[in-house]
Amino acid sequence: MTTPHLTTPAEDLGFALARVVDLPGLAATAGAPLGPDEIAAVLEEADRLARERIAPGRQEADRHGAVLEQAPPEDRGDGGNWPAVRTPPHYRDLYRAWIEGGWQGLTAEPGHGGQGLPQTLWSAVMELVSSADMAFGLCPLLSMGAIEALQHAATPAQRERWLPHLVSGEWTGTMCLTEPQAGSDLGALRTRAVPDGRGGYALHGQKIFITWGEHDLAANTLHLVLARLPDAPPGSRGISLFVAPKVLPDGRRNALGCGGLERKMGIHASPTCVMLFEGAEAELVGEPNRGLAAMFVMMNAARLGVGVEGVGQGARAVALAEAYAAGREQGGRPIAEYPDVARMLREMRSVTLAARLLALEASVALDRARLLGDAAAAARIALLTPIVKAWCTDRGIDVASLGVQVHGGAGFTEDAGAAQVLRDARIAPIYEGTNGIQAIDLVVRKVARDSGAAMRALLAEARGVEPRVDAALAALERATALVLAAQARDPAAAEGVAAAYLDACGWVLGGWMLARAAAAEGGAERYGALAEFYLGRLLPRAAARIAEVEVAG
Amino acid sequence: MTTPHLTTPAEDLGFALARVVDLPGLAATAGAPLGPDEIAAVLEEADRLARERIAPGRQEADRHGAVLEQAPPEDRGDGGNWPAVRTPPHYRDLYRAWIEGGWQGLTAEPGHGGQGLPQTLWSAVMELVSSADMAFGLCPLLSMGAIEALQHAATPAQRERWLPHLVSGEWTGTMCLTEPQAGSDLGALRTRAVPDGRGGYALHGQKIFITWGEHDLAANTLHLVLARLPDAPPGSRGISLFVAPKVLPDGRRNALGCGGLERKMGIHASPTCVMLFEGAEAELVGEPNRGLAAMFVMMNAARLGVGVEGVGQGARAVALAEAYAAGREQGGRPIAEYPDVARMLREMRSVTLAARLLALEASVALDRARLLGDAAAAARIALLTPIVKAWCTDRGIDVASLGVQVHGGAGFTEDAGAAQVLRDARIAPIYEGTNGIQAIDLVVRKVARDSGAAMRALLAEARGVEPRVDAALAALERATALVLAAQARDPAAAEGVAAAYLDACGWVLGGWMLARAAAAEGGAERYGALAEFYLGRLLPRAAARIAEVEVAG
Repeated sequence: MTTPHLTTPAEDLGFALARVVDLPGLAATAGAPLGPDEIAAVLEEADRLARERIAPGRQEADRHGAVLEQAPPEDRGDGGNWPAVRTPPHYRDLYRAWIEGGWQGLTAEPGHGGQGLPQTLWSAVMELVSSADMAFGLCPLLSMGAIEALQHAATPAQRERWLPHLVSGEWTGTMCLTEPQAGSDLGALRTRAVPDGRGGYALHGQKIFITWGEHDLAANTLHLVLARLPDAPPGSRGISLFVAPKVLPDGRRNALGCGGLERKMGIHASPTCVMLFEGAEAELVGEPNRGLAAMFVMMNAARLGVGVEGVGQGARAVALAEAYAAGREQGGRPIAEYPDVARMLREMRSVTLAARLLALEASVALDRARLLGDAAAAARIALLTPIVKAWCTDRGIDVASLGVQVHGGAGFTEDAGAAQVLRDARIAPIYEGTNGIQAIDLVVRKVARDSGAAMRALLAEARGVEPRVDAALAALERATALVLAAQARDPAAAEGVAAAYLDACGWVLGGWMLARAAAAEGGAERYGALAEFYLGRLLPRAAARIAEVEVAG
Repeated sequence: MTTPHLTTPAEDLGFALARVVDLPGLAATAGAPLGPDEIAAVLEEADRLARERIAPGRQEADRHGAVLEQAPPEDRGDGGNWPAVRTPPHYRDLYRAWIEGGWQGLTAEPGHGGQGLPQTLWSAVMELVSSADMAFGLCPLLSMGAIEALQHAATPAQRERWLPHLVSGEWTGTMCLTEPQAGSDLGALRTRAVPDGRGGYALHGQKIFITWGEHDLAANTLHLVLARLPDAPPGSRGISLFVAPKVLPDGRRNALGCGGLERKMGIHASPTCVMLFEGAEAELVGEPNRGLAAMFVMMNAARLGVGVEGVGQGARAVALAEAYAAGREQGGRPIAEYPDVARMLREMRSVTLAARLLALEASVALDRARLLGDAAAAARIALLTPIVKAWCTDRGIDVASLGVQVHGGAGFTEDAGAAQVLRDARIAPIYEGTNGIQAIDLVVRKVARDSGAAMRALLAEARGVEPRVDAALAALERATALVLAAQARDPAAAEGVAAAYLDACGWVLGGWMLARAAAAEGGAERYGALAEFYLGRLLPRAAARIAEVEVAG
C-alpha cells in the first residue's frame, strides 16, 4: 500500500464543502454567497480553537468529570436549596472563548444576533469541537437544539425574549424529555403542567438523562420540557412543550434543579442530570398537545449533530492512532509500517472520511431545504438523518475500538487517550433516539411512507460515479423493495431487519461519497487510495447486511 | 421469531461437552472415563461458585479496583521497601473458596496434587469464572499458565519444589514478558540475568503489563521471567526463562516488586503491574537461550484461555441484557418483544454460543493431542488457537457492545453493569499477543508452514453438516488458496489480509459448530433457532471478509 498524504480533518472538511457537496454553489443559489476561502477561514478559526484550546484538556476533563455539590448558601432561592454541578475548572475559559468567538450563533438568525451561516458549516465546526472534547461539545450542541426548536415553535415575543441570550451563548439550553418510565416511548411521560391562572404553568415531575441540565458555565439555562396539560389526551398526542428557565426574569431561582448525576462509562465531564421540577414556573411554547412535533424539530437537528459526534470521535481516534503508530517502534521500524497496523489505520481513516462526507451531504440537504424551500431536499434530509445518526455513530465506535487496538497494551490504559475516545463514543448510538429507533424511523417513516420514492431518487442520483458503487446501489434497491414488501406484509419482520438495512445504506452511501471525493480531487492522491481501500475491502460489508434483509424478504 | 428455551451457560457447556465435542468419548479412549454426569457435576459446582460467590461482587470489585500502597514496615525485606497492592476486600474469601474447592489443580498432574482432568473441563470452568468476574478470573488463569510452562520445561526437582504450591493455589504465578520497548517484539527485551557463581542468577530489569504481578491473595508468587544471559545472542534466540519467587525459600523478600499500577479502561480489580527486578534471585528453567519456546507453551494455553474470556464476557452481556429486556417495559410490553431488541438478543446469544462451542472444540483437540499423542490433533489445536483467541475476543466485544445498546441510556451508566462488561472485554483482543499477531500466526505459522494441509483437513472434516456451512467452507477453501499464494508471492500482502482471513475462519467455523449443536439436540429446540438465525443472518459476514482476502489474491 502506498502511503497517501495524510490530510487533517479541517483540510478534509474544507475540501468536502467546496468540492464534494458544493456549499458555495448552494450559497450562491440562495443569494448569500460563501466562497471556498471564506469557508476555509471559518474552519481554520474553529480548528485553532479546537486544537489549541479545547483538545489539550480532554483527558483532564475526563478525570475531573462533573461533580455534584451542595449549592453555597447565597444561591438558595425560592426554589429551594438545589445542588450545584461543578464542571472541570478549565471549562469556564473554554466556554468564554466559545461565546466570545460568536460560535454559538453561527447559523442563527441575524435578527437575534446570529451570523445566519449555513447549517453545513455548523456541522463542520461541531465535528472539530466534538473531536477535541465530546463532553464539552455537548453543551453548545444542546443549546443549538433549543435555538432550533424556539425558532420554529415560539411566538415572536418569546423568541425576542429568549433567543438573543441563547444565540450569544450567555444562556444554555436543554432538552428535558426522558423520564424513568418513558425512554424510547415518550408517550408514557407523566410530568404535569398545571395552569397558574395567570397564563403560565407550574411544572411537576422528574426527568432523567438531561445532558448539561445543571452546570457552572452560564448565568442561566432554558429548559425545554415536555409535559402534560391537565386535560391532555393520553399517549403521544397529549404532550406539550414548555420553557422553564433556571433563573426567573426577576432574578429568583426557579423551582427546578438537579437531583443527581449519572455515573457513566464516558463523557464524564458532561453532566447527565436527574432534573426535578417542583412547581417550576414555565411558559407554553406552540400549541397545546403539539409538543412532540415541536421537539422533533429539535431532535432532528440534534440527531444530525450526534452523527457528527461519531465522525468527531473517529477523527480523534485516527489522530491518536496515527501518531502512536508513527512513533512506536518494534523490530527497528515504526509499527505503522507493519501491514496489519497499516490496514487498521487505513480502515479507520477511510471509514471516518466516508462518515464525514455523508454527514456533510445530509447537512447540505438540510440547508437546501431551508434556504431554497426545496421539497426534494426536505425528503432527502428526512431520509438521511436516521442513516447519519446511526451509521456514523456505529462507525465511530468501530474506529475508536480499532484505535485502542493500534495502541496495543497502551491503548487499554487511560494514559494514551484512546480508551477515552471509545468510552465517550459509546453513548452516541444510544441518545437522541437509539440506533434501533433510527432504523425503524428509516424503514417505517422515511421509506415506507412514500413507498420508497425518496430512497429510489437517492439511489438513482448516486449511480454512475463508480462501478462497484453502482453494483452496491442495485443491491440496495432490491433490498429496499424487500423491506417495503415486508413492511406491507409483516411489519415486525421489517423492523427485525431494519438495523441491517440501515447499516447497508450507510456502507453504500459512504462508498458513494468517497468515490465522489476521489473523482473531485482529480488525481491529487489524497483520497483516491482511501476510496480504493474502502470500495475494495469494506463495501462488501453492505452485501452481508443485505443478506440479512433477504431473510425477511 | 419464536422464543427458544433460554439455556444457561452451564447447561450449554454440559450439552456441548457431552453431545457436540464428545469429551466422554475422548476420555474413554484415553483410558480415563469421564461420563456426562460427572461432567455435569463439575460444571454445577463451578457454576454455583461463579454465580453465588464470585458474580455478586463484580461491580464492587470494579469500583474498588487494585490499589497501590506502601508496604507496612514489617514487610520490609532485604529486597527493599516494596509497595503492596490491595485488591477488593472480598477477593480474599473468593480466592480461599477457589483453592479450597481444588479448582486450581483441576487439570494438573496428580503427582503434584492435581486432579488430572481434561483441559476441556478447565476451559468450561474458566468461562463460568471469567464471566462472573473477569478481573478475578485472571489470577487463576495466570497461575495455570505458570503450571503449564513448568510442567513442560522445568526439571523434576524444580517441579517437585514449585508445582505443589501452584497446583494447590497457595502460590500464584505470573508471566513477565513485556518491557517498555519490547511488546509484540519480544526479541527486543533487555532484562539481564547475571550468574551469581552459585548456580543461580540475579535478574535486573523492568517488566510492564504484568497481570496479578503483586497482590494480597497468596503467600507467595512465582514470577516466570524472560531475560538475557550475559553471552546471549541478540534477538529472540538469546532469551532464557527464569523463575524468581516473591518470597525466597528462607523467608526473605526477593529483590523484586511492584513499581506501579496501570490505570486501565477495565478489569480494574486485576492489578496490572510494572515489575522491577533489582538483582532478584532466580533460577534458570530449561535450556539457556531457549526461553521463548518454553514461554510459548504457557502462552498457547493462555491464548486459549483468553479466547474463553471473550466467551465469558459475551455470556455475561447476554445474561444482563436478557434480564433487562424482560423487565423493562415500554409501550405496555417488555422491550424484549420489540423486533429490533429481539434481534440484538438473538445475535448476542447465537454468537456467544458459536464462540463457546469453537473454544471447546479447540480444547478437545488439545486434550486429544496430549492424552492420545495424536499428531493431527496437535496440528488442529495449533491451527485453532489463534482463531479462538482472536475471533472469540472480537465477538466478546461485539456482544458486550450490543448488551450496552439493549439497555439504552441505562447501559451507558455504570449502574447496570453492562458498561463494565464492555470495558473489561476490551483487553482480550490485546493481551497474550494482539489479535493482529494472532492473524499473522495463523497465516504464516499455521497455514503457510504446512502449505495449508491442516486447514484443508479441518475444512474437509466440517463438510456435510449443513448446506450453507458447506458453501461457506468452499469459499474459505478458495480464500485459503489465495492467502497461500499471496504469502508465497508477497508476504506483506498476505499479512495485510490476515485479520480478514482469520475473521472469516471464525464466522464459518462458528456456523459449523452451531449446526452441529442443532443436529445433536435432535429437535429439542434449544439450539435450532439460534443456529438458523446465525446461518441466515450472520454467516454472510464471512463472505464480506473473504472479499477482503480476494483483494490480496
